[in-house]
Amino acid sequence: MDELVPEIKKYQQALEQALVSMDLPKVPATLYDPIRYILSLQAKRLRPVLTLIANDLYNGNQEEAINAAVAIEIFHNFTLVHDDIMDNATLRRGEQTVHVKWNLPSAILSGDVMLVLVYRYLSFLPQDKFLPATKLINDTAIKVCEGQQWDMEFESKSDISIDQYITMIGLKTAVLLGTSLKIGALLTQASENEQDLLYNFGYNLGISFQIQDDLLDSFGNEKFGKAIGGDIAANKKTFLTLKAMQIADDKTNKELFKIYHQSDIESDEKIAKVMDIYQQLDIKMHTEAIRDAYFEKALSYLQRLDLADSKKEILLRLSHQLLNRTT
Amino acid sequence: MDELVPEIKKYQQALEQALVSMDLPKVPATLYDPIRYILSLQAKRLRPVLTLIANDLYNGNQEEAINAAVAIEIFHNFTLVHDDIMDNATLRRGEQTVHVKWNLPSAILSGDVMLVLVYRYLSFLPQDKFLPATKLINDTAIKVCEGQQWDMEFESKSDISIDQYITMIGLKTAVLLGTSLKIGALLTQASENEQDLLYNFGYNLGISFQIQDDLLDSFGNEKFGKAIGGDIAANKKTFLTLKAMQIADDKTNKELFKIYHQSDIESDEKIAKVMDIYQQLDIKMHTEAIRDAYFEKALSYLQRLDLADSKKEILLRLSHQLLNRTT
Repeated sequence: MDELVPEIKKYQQALEQALVSMDLPKVPATLYDPIRYILSLQAKRLRPVLTLIANDLYNGNQEEAINAAVAIEIFHNFTLVHDDIMDNATLRRGEQTVHVKWNLPSAILSGDVMLVLVYRYLSFLPQDKFLPATKLINDTAIKVCEGQQWDMEFESKSDISIDQYITMIGLKTAVLLGTSLKIGALLTQASENEQDLLYNFGYNLGISFQIQDDLLDSFGNEKFGKAIGGDIAANKKTFLTLKAMQIADDKTNKELFKIYHQSDIESDEKIAKVMDIYQQLDIKMHTEAIRDAYFEKALSYLQRLDLADSKKEILLRLSHQLLNRTT
Repeated sequence: MDELVPEIKKYQQALEQALVSMDLPKVPATLYDPIRYILSLQAKRLRPVLTLIANDLYNGNQEEAINAAVAIEIFHNFTLVHDDIMDNATLRRGEQTVHVKWNLPSAILSGDVMLVLVYRYLSFLPQDKFLPATKLINDTAIKVCEGQQWDMEFESKSDISIDQYITMIGLKTAVLLGTSLKIGALLTQASENEQDLLYNFGYNLGISFQIQDDLLDSFGNEKFGKAIGGDIAANKKTFLTLKAMQIADDKTNKELFKIYHQSDIESDEKIAKVMDIYQQLDIKMHTEAIRDAYFEKALSYLQRLDLADSKKEILLRLSHQLLNRTT
């Protein structure tokens, strides 16, 4: 993805600065080097940037908010390290995953330490904010784990409904976007209602973003250098597959089932066959419609915030850019 | 191990009651069933019992302390679930380990949820105690992870000093015993000095207990049905091995090295040969001396507590029983 809107550069820089200043012990190296490694990989830092933006919108103190932002980024990276083990992923952000570069025990244990570090950074928050911030992170962390578990379970199930899928991506991805914003506002004088509106904005944006991600995998985007059809080749259930299964007639459904369960089929042929069905069923249009519905819902929450339009501009532009639209 | 002193039964019961009343979701079952499972295995609950005892010693409120005790027990079980993966263990408390009974992803993820639940239980503490209790658990959790990492690294190293070994078992085991006591006192009016004395009592007791554990593996105990020499057969570095390497002459050291690196030797023969060297070097006596020194150190901290002797009695008797001594 290209650089995000230029106004967020200062937030990204503040975050990078805070990450670089993290004072982790040198030894045991096999415990702390993986943490330094994963946190140093090139990343957009979207989640902690959202925290800092939300904090700024309500005139919060950035020196305080940076601790919440770092906690959010460490939490996100903790999930990457552990998820990559579970998903047998070898690459992360174009580099080796922790369990490949080191080993399984190191990846488990440095992930564990990262989760503890999340709470250490929260403990640096102003005392009256520590409890609500921790409760928010507790609830969020559990939801994210539930999302990952559902995601893995769905792999071996053939009867996932679209609602179940949306719930899963909600837990796995969208909740943390909502929380990243909410925790930034929670540190300010913003009312609970404002905090919840921000959360719902982030949550719906996250769903929309994830559906867009599914869409791009099959229908691509010239800006992405990515190969088309990776999800199809990997038998991954995405919004597109589920939508196709939902609206296809019996015959097409049987065909889809056959393609997905055929072991002697080449990837290229499989992708071509599934894409053909997607075309017949207008899956692109159906998916865009749902993506846009969540996007509009997100914006409706943004609109309701008790802030001047000029202040909302940064989140509006960021949202459009995340969804790869021209503003 | 036999039942602990009868006075602690009420604490064990309170803890079991609290664990049974934990309100965990039913689904995803593969995420929550392992948590219910590991927490339901028969266990002494030594750590949370220490929390409740310490709390009682300073007239704390048990309804408050039980949340800290549950947090401690969940934390301990979280380490068991993740350590069992790293150590490739198949049995825990005589039952299948989580990653064997379920699978690796489930074991990683339910462990992660357990670590979050630790903080959730801490968040139930009285507001003014939440921050110090969380800081204590943060520091402890990181130390326990460091201890596990050192333990794994020591397996492939041949030049571990006794000091390094003591530091490792201190981090991996003893710190949590100290913390279990300290957190119980932290919830009361007990001074910081009292809290620290309790911590040091628990820490030194933990070291002593771990050395005793090493000793029993080679020299046994008729009360234990365990086979003798398991550590030797598994090439595990224990206090006994390191002490032997420290005091043996060059010739004996070479012999030890040879036995440990010989691949075509039967377990029985290996155990017999190493035990023979242990006898020659009086390793049992040397180990008992160090174990007793830590035990005495622990008791000296207990003695310094600003409490009536009658109150200290329960911890004194518990300590003797843990070290398998007749009081």
